Amino acid sequence: MTANQIDPPARLLMGPGPITADPRVLRAMSAQLVGQYDPAMTGYMAETQELFRGVFQTRNAATLLVDGTARAGIEAVFVSLLEPGDKVLVPVFGRFGSLLREIAERCGAEVHVIEREWGTVFTPAEIEKALSTVKPKLLAIVHGDTSTTVAQPLDELGALAAKHGALLYTDVTASLGGNTFLADAWGVDAATAGLQKCLAGSSGSSPITLSDRAVAIIEARKSVEAGIRTEGDPVLAAPIRSNYFDLAQILDYWGPKRLNHHTEATTMLYGARECARILLEEGVENAVERHRVHGAAMTAGLVATGLKLFGDQSVRMNNVIGVHIPDGVDPDGVRATLMADYGIEIGTSFGPLHGKVWRVGVMGYNARKDAVLTTLAALEQVLRRAGAKVAAGAGTDAALESYGL
Amino acid sequence: MTANQIDPPARLLMGPGPITADPRVLRAMSAQLVGQYDPAMTGYMAETQELFRGVFQTRNAATLLVDGTARAGIEAVFVSLLEPGDKVLVPVFGRFGSLLREIAERCGAEVHVIEREWGTVFTPAEIEKALSTVKPKLLAIVHGDTSTTVAQPLDELGALAAKHGALLYTDVTASLGGNTFLADAWGVDAATAGLQKCLAGSSGSSPITLSDRAVAIIEARKSVEAGIRTEGDPVLAAPIRSNYFDLAQILDYWGPKRLNHHTEATTMLYGARECARILLEEGVENAVERHRVHGAAMTAGLVATGLKLFGDQSVRMNNVIGVHIPDGVDPDGVRATLMADYGIEIGTSFGPLHGKVWRVGVMGYNARKDAVLTTLAALEQVLRRAGAKVAAGAGTDAALESYGL
Repeated sequence: MTANQIDPPARLLMGPGPITADPRVLRAMSAQLVGQYDPAMTGYMAETQELFRGVFQTRNAATLLVDGTARAGIEAVFVSLLEPGDKVLVPVFGRFGSLLREIAERCGAEVHVIEREWGTVFTPAEIEKALSTVKPKLLAIVHGDTSTTVAQPLDELGALAAKHGALLYTDVTASLGGNTFLADAWGVDAATAGLQKCLAGSSGSSPITLSDRAVAIIEARKSVEAGIRTEGDPVLAAPIRSNYFDLAQILDYWGPKRLNHHTEATTMLYGARECARILLEEGVENAVERHRVHGAAMTAGLVATGLKLFGDQSVRMNNVIGVHIPDGVDPDGVRATLMADYGIEIGTSFGPLHGKVWRVGVMGYNARKDAVLTTLAALEQVLRRAGAKVAAGAGTDAALESYGL
Repeated sequence: MTANQIDPPARLLMGPGPITADPRVLRAMSAQLVGQYDPAMTGYMAETQELFRGVFQTRNAATLLVDGTARAGIEAVFVSLLEPGDKVLVPVFGRFGSLLREIAERCGAEVHVIEREWGTVFTPAEIEKALSTVKPKLLAIVHGDTSTTVAQPLDELGALAAKHGALLYTDVTASLGGNTFLADAWGVDAATAGLQKCLAGSSGSSPITLSDRAVAIIEARKSVEAGIRTEGDPVLAAPIRSNYFDLAQILDYWGPKRLNHHTEATTMLYGARECARILLEEGVENAVERHRVHGAAMTAGLVATGLKLFGDQSVRMNNVIGVHIPDGVDPDGVRATLMADYGIEIGTSFGPLHGKVWRVGVMGYNARKDAVLTTLAALEQVLRRAGAKVAAGAGTDAALESYGL
C-alpha cells in the first residue's frame, strides 16, 4: 500500500459543520510536542482552562477539555453524573436531542422525553410541567440543534431546573461562540461543546464546564480501583462505568493534583487553545454579533434567491440557515454541482427533513462577507442551470443591502 | 484573559512517550479540513484503514481509528466486546495491565487477574493454566508495558486462547512499529494502539484492528435505539453501554454503509495516516530493526555510563530502557537539570519503581543516532555534577561501538 502526501482539495465549507478551520488554528496544531508534565504543557493546560472560562462565560474551576469529539464530552458528563436508574428529562426538538436521549439510555438512566416538531422549540412552561411530573436528577437539552437550525432559549431553564431539584445540562456544540451563551448567569450546571462549528477549529476535542454542584456529585463517585478513593472510605454512590470518561479522574488530572490519567491529546489541546484565543481576542460579544450580521445577510440572500426558510426564524441560530429545496430540483444534484464546479459545500438534512431542506452554515472562520457573497453567487448559477426560477443578482444584492452596502 | 501564541520550548523527548513528533506528521496535521462525506475525506479514511492493515500486519476489514487517546481504543474494544458478567483473564505485569483490569471492571466484566513481578513476563504455560481454570471470554494482555520496559511474547497466545474458547486482545500502544507484531499470524482478535510512541505522532487517535470473530460478537449487539437494528429483530446480546465507543456503529461509519456516527476528528486522521505512511515507506521490518539498533546503542551507552539495567533484558522492548537510579543521586533533580540545561526529557517511573528507576525512550522519530548520542553525552555531564561516578566518554564510546563505528 502506498498513499500520497495529504493534499486536500480547496473547499469552502458552508454546511452545518465541520467548516473550514481558521488557518491560525491549523498553524497552532503544527507546533512540536512537549512532555505531559513539562511546565510548558501544564502551563498551556491552565491557560486553556482560563480561556474557555471566557468562552463559556463562567467562573467554574472545572472547565477543561475531554479528548474526543463533541459527543465524547456529552458522554463524559452523562456517565459521570448519572447512575443507573437516575431519572433524566430530555426535551427533544431535533436529531441531537435524540442523541442525548440515547446516550443517557446507554448510561442506564431512566429517560423521559418530551418532543416538539423539528423547527420549533419549547416554552419554559412546557419544560416546567415535565420537570414537575418527572422530577428528574438531570434536565438535558440541546442549545442549538443543527439538524433543525433553531436554538432553545435557555435563560430561564437553570432557575426552573433548580426549583425542581434538577441539574441543567446543555449541549452547546453548534451554538457556542456564535450565539449568546452565559453558563453562570443562566444557571447551567454542565455544558459541552466541540471545536468544529463557530469556534473555527477541528473536531476532536470537547471543551466542557461543570458547576461546583455537578463536581460534588462526580467526586462522590470516585472509585477505589482507580486509586482516587482510599479503601475503607464510604462508597457514596455507584462507581463511574467508564475509565476514559471518568470526570472524577480527569478533574484530578487537570486540577492541582495533576494525577496522571490519559496521555493528553497535545495537538488537539494546542488547537482548542488557539480557537479560544481567537474568540477572546475578538471578544465573545463581537463574535456573536459577527455571526448575527453574516447569518442575516445569508438569510436575506437566500430569500431573495427565491428560497423559502425552514424553521421558526424568531429562534434560529445565527450560524445555520435551513431552506426548503425548490420543487423539481434534484437535492443532491445541486449540492454535488456546487461542490464539483465551485468547491462549495452546503448541507443536506437528517430524518424528516432529508431531501426537503438544505442547511447553509455561516460560522467560525467562514462567518465572513466574501464567503457569504461567494456562496450566494455560486448557488444562483447552480440553481438556474438546475431549472429553478432565480432572479439574476437578487441574492447578492439582498445580502449587500443587509450589510448596509 | 490573554495568552500568547503557542510557542513550545525546544525539547528532545527521550522518555517513555509521548516523544518528539516527526515534523512530517505535524505538517500533515496542518492541512485544511474537508467535509465529512467529501470523496476526498472518505478516500483518506479508506487509505488510512489500508495503511494500518500494513502496520498491524493484518487483513482485517475492521481496521480503523477510534477518536481519542490510546485508552479510548482499549475502552471501545472492551465495552463493545464485553457484556456485564463476561469473564476476562488479565495477566498483569505492569501498570498498563492494571489499566486493562480496571477498564474491564468498569464494563461490568468478571475480571480474573494473574500477576508477575514488574520487569518479568509470563510463560505460555502460566497463561494456559489460568485460561483452563477461568475459561474466559477474553484474554486481555498488554504487549509492551512501558511501565516496566518489557514485552510479553504473544506468538503462542492466539492459539492458546482459541484452544480454550477465548478471544485474544492486546494493547500494542507502546510496542507497535518498534517491535515485531503480527496480528494475523499470531491469532490476535483485537489490538489497539496510539500514535505517540514508535509511530512518531501525537496522542489523540487510537488505531485498532478486529478479527472477523470479534466483529461478529460486536455486530450481534446492535441496538434499536441507535437505528442500526430493526424493531422486531431478535436481541442477540446485551446492548453496548456506550454510544461514543459503540464499535458496531463506528464500523458502519467506516464501512461501505458510511452511516453517520460522530464528526470524524479530521486533523487527527491526517496525522494517523501520515504516521502509517512514514512507517510503511520505511518498511515495518526496517523500522523494527532501526528501533532495535538504536535501543541497543542506548543500552550499551547507559551501561558504560555506570547504570544498571532494570528488567528482564531478554524480553525488553526495543524502544524503552529502564535503569536503576544510582545511590545518592536525587532522581527528580537529575531529570530536572537534564531538562533545564539540555532540553532533554527522560522518564520517571510509576508504582513500585517510582524513585528507583528512570526510563529512557528511543522511539519513533527519536530512534536516531544523534538523539541517542546527545542524550548519553548530556546525561554523563548531569550525573557527574550530581556526584555519581562516571567514566568520561564511556557512554558515547560504547554507543558508537554498538553501532560498529
